[in-house]
Amino acid sequence: MPTPTVSMPHHGYLTDKDDYLKRLKRVEGQARGISKMVDEEKYCIDILTQISALTSALRVVAVSLLDDHLKHCVLDAARLDGPGAEMKIKEASDAVARLVRS
Amino acid sequence: MPTPTVSMPHHGYLTDKDDYLKRLKRVEGQARGISKMVDEEKYCIDILTQISALTSALRVVAVSLLDDHLKHCVLDAARLDGPGAEMKIKEASDAVARLVRS
Amino acid sequence: MPTPTVSMPHHGYLTDKDDYLKRLKRVEGQARGISKMVDEEKYCIDILTQISALTSALRVVAVSLLDDHLKHCVLDAARLDGPGAEMKIKEASDAVARLVRS
Amino acid sequence: MPTPTVSMPHHGYLTDKDDYLKRLKRVEGQARGISKMVDEEKYCIDILTQISALTSALRVVAVSLLDDHLKHCVLDAARLDGPGAEMKIKEASDAVARLVRS
Repeated sequence: MPTPTVSMPHHGYLTDKDDYLKRLKRVEGQARGISKMVDEEKYCIDILTQISALTSALRVVAVSLLDDHLKHCVLDAARLDGPGAEMKIKEASDAVARLVRS
Repeated sequence: MPTPTVSMPHHGYLTDKDDYLKRLKRVEGQARGISKMVDEEKYCIDILTQISALTSALRVVAVSLLDDHLKHCVLDAARLDGPGAEMKIKEASDAVARLVRS
Repeated sequence: MPTPTVSMPHHGYLTDKDDYLKRLKRVEGQARGISKMVDEEKYCIDILTQISALTSALRVVAVSLLDDHLKHCVLDAARLDGPGAEMKIKEASDAVARLVRS
Repeated sequence: MPTPTVSMPHHGYLTDKDDYLKRLKRVEGQARGISKMVDEEKYCIDILTQISALTSALRVVAVSLLDDHLKHCVLDAARLDGPGAEMKIKEASDAVARLVRS
């Protein structure tokens, strides 16, 4: 329903956008590092350690995004009342379900 | 023991309490089943399969509880406005963080 | 193929059977405690904390069982040589795949 | 840089090296895509969906690497007998423990 120009202020992570971008650049670097380890035929167990570290970093970003989403999009919807808030919460719970199984 | 008239507005899962109790009885049964498999010296891999099944069942219960919590406690707090809602959301995000790492 | 009396010495967890049973009794107690918390209508977030603790406890047991399985069943198969070892390893990897996604 | 003739017997994933590199290029692409979504201020929930997809892709790679590691490094060590195999298994179990908690 909202056009992007209207909805953008609702994207809760925007205040910290630079911080997210910085963390995600690090994630990209970790992904590249893992490719390089395979290319250079490093020891499997060391590669697994780096994959675990990358997975953990992604989880931290995901939980932050979810927190910001709840704090902004969901709270805003709740304050407007109406059925929007419940839809937003269903959507957030589904995202958590995907996250814990991923 | 519980005092529903007082606690109900605060506990979103109460409308489905019987359903939760039924699911958790099944979880208890699965836990007992795993003990029994070890006691009867079943094959390790089969025990691991049952542990994975129990972990998945717990995750499903956890995501449902979180969904109900957001839909009730958090929405109620949001509608009342004030700082309570943000505290509730922080608490819920922390619970998600524990869940994804567990 | 093996009859229980023959395969039992291969079940790697047997030397620590009492320890596993003790840990799994604790797991059962945790599962019962979660049911009780729902029955007594405790706060959702506290129930989620207990579910995370139970999931973590199960993961620790699962990783121990896998370790014992590799150390005994898989090593024994490897030392006998033949195709058995590879089948055992495929089975263990599949168990890990189920575990990380559960 | 790598010296295949020396390292190949020790690194089980080498036969599928190209396949791993292809999968990890895709992982890098997914990581870049997530940065781009944040930069373009996409909807939080859609970003979370992509993070879950990336986490799942990493888990699949990790389980494959572990499987190859067990099939080659660990089996080779087991066939040589001696204490090496048990150390390798301890190392693999520790990697699984990090993986399930990441």
